[in-house]
Amino acid sequence: MSILMVGSVALDTVETPCGKVEDGLGGSAVHASLAASHLAPVEVVGVVGSDFPKRHIKLLEKAGIGTQGLEIVKGGCTFRWGGRYFTDINQRETLFTELGCFETFRPKVPPTLARLPYVFLANIDPVLQLQVLDQCKKPKLVMLDTMNLWIDIRREALIETLRRVDVVLLNDEEARQLADVISLEKAAKIILNYGVKRVIIKKGEHGAIMFSSKGFFAAPGLPLGRVVDPTGAGDTFAGGLIGYLARTGATDEKAMRQAMLVGTALASCCVEDFSVRRVSKLKKEDFRKRLKMATSAIACPAFRV
Amino acid sequence: MSILMVGSVALDTVETPCGKVEDGLGGSAVHASLAASHLAPVEVVGVVGSDFPKRHIKLLEKAGIGTQGLEIVKGGCTFRWGGRYFTDINQRETLFTELGCFETFRPKVPPTLARLPYVFLANIDPVLQLQVLDQCKKPKLVMLDTMNLWIDIRREALIETLRRVDVVLLNDEEARQLADVISLEKAAKIILNYGVKRVIIKKGEHGAIMFSSKGFFAAPGLPLGRVVDPTGAGDTFAGGLIGYLARTGATDEKAMRQAMLVGTALASCCVEDFSVRRVSKLKKEDFRKRLKMATSAIACPAFRV
Repeated sequence: MSILMVGSVALDTVETPCGKVEDGLGGSAVHASLAASHLAPVEVVGVVGSDFPKRHIKLLEKAGIGTQGLEIVKGGCTFRWGGRYFTDINQRETLFTELGCFETFRPKVPPTLARLPYVFLANIDPVLQLQVLDQCKKPKLVMLDTMNLWIDIRREALIETLRRVDVVLLNDEEARQLADVISLEKAAKIILNYGVKRVIIKKGEHGAIMFSSKGFFAAPGLPLGRVVDPTGAGDTFAGGLIGYLARTGATDEKAMRQAMLVGTALASCCVEDFSVRRVSKLKKEDFRKRLKMATSAIACPAFRV
Repeated sequence: MSILMVGSVALDTVETPCGKVEDGLGGSAVHASLAASHLAPVEVVGVVGSDFPKRHIKLLEKAGIGTQGLEIVKGGCTFRWGGRYFTDINQRETLFTELGCFETFRPKVPPTLARLPYVFLANIDPVLQLQVLDQCKKPKLVMLDTMNLWIDIRREALIETLRRVDVVLLNDEEARQLADVISLEKAAKIILNYGVKRVIIKKGEHGAIMFSSKGFFAAPGLPLGRVVDPTGAGDTFAGGLIGYLARTGATDEKAMRQAMLVGTALASCCVEDFSVRRVSKLKKEDFRKRLKMATSAIACPAFRV
């Protein structure tokens, strides 16, 4: 089944201890779409300016990602983000944010895409996320990502949107901020009470955890020899997750746990090179190997005491 | 099979957002012994002053822990530690450290205990840990814990000791400090090269990870509604781990992974009350329930993409 991905399409200038890339293909919808494209058909909804390189559109289309929902604003500028990561790769600073035509982005879901069963609302203003949902016809599963900014300035809209969402993705700081408690377990319970079915908390190198009425699951962080660029890892995780769900058509606890491991495997590939280089070229065989690493990292034969 | 536990026996004064306990039974050897006592016979080697309450010795003996190796220094004072935890329970400050007779502690392994097959060298000066190993006769498995202080001032002795150790336990900061790299995976590889067979990195609420030539394993951090006092959680984890190994007699990858989950389950109990209150009174049924929580947190049916 197909997935609708709504979010940013960007040009990222990123500097890490491993090197630098200027105007690399990035954005939440791009990372999520490329990850999911390994598993299911994807349609992207976003906006770019006329400065957006044609080769990036070709790259998406070559990956089987539909771009009819990608608006190109004549004379407009594509969203650009610049950041620098420190020796401790978990730390970064933003060098610049040029919103360009992303500033006035009003996502339009083409009528042909309104019935896609899987919807990922990547990190944009929750008011816009709600407008997307209003354009969708009975999606089977809606997943949402957000950020500290929206929790700060759009709290009510975000909570209202969450009522219509199945799975919310947050990092640990965002979960604490949204629920206004320190304990992640308490935060998850509070957020579940907003009406979402599952809360997934991304913890970077510590993996990701999932809370729901069906139980608690901890996906591992995979040990990586070389982290080149962490940008997009969270969106790649999200893309892998919803990609696996769309591929299997299941949304039960078992499928969700497997989907978390698929997301983990793809996210661990994402950080091994700049921009979308690794995930866009990932071979089936390497994907399977990485997935095996993820499953074996938590494999433990049954026992009792 | 029996376990020799060598480390501190202490009186802890601990303040947390949940309350305060003065002179509570504590110390690395105590927490580890009580955890392991749920699984295998334990003998403790440590030192206390004549101020050490008899009821604490009774508590240990009632748990089946042998105390013939517990030296009581006449007129001496027991090691006392005082600390305060903040609202973010992962943060603490030390209020006082009164080493007392622990300052001149020279562990003596009674000849009757020298042949115990499982040895846990809890966090003490590595020079003393080495002296303990010199007194032991061909142990089957040696596990060692340490701290930032010894990595700072006893680096060479620590590395020398590690050559004779099977399993080393470190927290993430200690692993980075010992190996002098930021990546935990690189740190683990460097430490494995010191000659230990397995490196286990404790990450508090994020669980624990194990590196060896046999693979990588990630034990989950369990979601706890109420963390009352984190003191001793690491030693309780260690005690549960070596306790399970001693119980099964196995040291292979499978047993080590299971042992990590046993340690996880017991550590999660430890933090639910002050001092040793919860672990010393833990019922078999509650232990099993918690262990089930740990195994189910990483359970995922096999699949492929």
